[in-house]
Amino acid sequence: MTQSRRKFLSILSFMSFGLIANAEPAKKKQLSHHVFFWLKDPSSKTDLDKLIQGVQALGKIPQVKKIHVGVPASTEKRDVVDNSYSVSELLFFESTEDQKIYQDHALHQKFIQEHSMLWDKVVVYDTMEV
Amino acid sequence: MTQSRRKFLSILSFMSFGLIANAEPAKKKQLSHHVFFWLKDPSSKTDLDKLIQGVQALGKIPQVKKIHVGVPASTEKRDVVDNSYSVSELLFFESTEDQKIYQDHALHQKFIQEHSMLWDKVVVYDTMEV
Repeated sequence: MTQSRRKFLSILSFMSFGLIANAEPAKKKQLSHHVFFWLKDPSSKTDLDKLIQGVQALGKIPQVKKIHVGVPASTEKRDVVDNSYSVSELLFFESTEDQKIYQDHALHQKFIQEHSMLWDKVVVYDTMEV
Repeated sequence: MTQSRRKFLSILSFMSFGLIANAEPAKKKQLSHHVFFWLKDPSSKTDLDKLIQGVQALGKIPQVKKIHVGVPASTEKRDVVDNSYSVSELLFFESTEDQKIYQDHALHQKFIQEHSMLWDKVVVYDTMEV
């Protein structure tokens, strides 16, 4: 390859990158679906592990773009902080339609059937990013 | 470059990649900090916009690794879904220590001073990823 040809290809590659960068669409607003579970028996490590495993498997549903599963963090105790729940399930979707497909999905329905006996309270917060 | 030298460099490059891939640490567990705000006057678009802008500015605090700010999504109404709040602030940290630094950070304290007159209820859920 000649020096001039190499330079030409280098410029071409730089220009293409510029075009791709400019063509990139604006970041899609995400819908967060945050579910808090209170176990019937909060002292049962077996029930906790079973629920955590069940929740983690929900990440296989294609509409779920991101999943964050956890337990109350050891942050400072304050009046406004609710750390009474057992498991937190935080999922991200690209639209309300995707969240609906997830709700009706066989894997989600199976999760409810096989785990709902473990909890006595659930609170859900659905948020659309602004 | 000779054919054999090219092949040698190609193998070397492949081996280096393998080493880098193996050396990569496991994905760090993240702490989610989810705050729900109930406005004193939920009908005020001005108060809503002011609170949203205030919350969004918290993303400038270096310990905040990701921020998701929103309002109740138009998902299906169900008994378990709480859509009574006005603004949702969801932040991700890399540790409880980072979350504490954030709590004490001047920008966060300024946010509370300048916006706390807008809300009459706040609920916080801190979750450590399992």
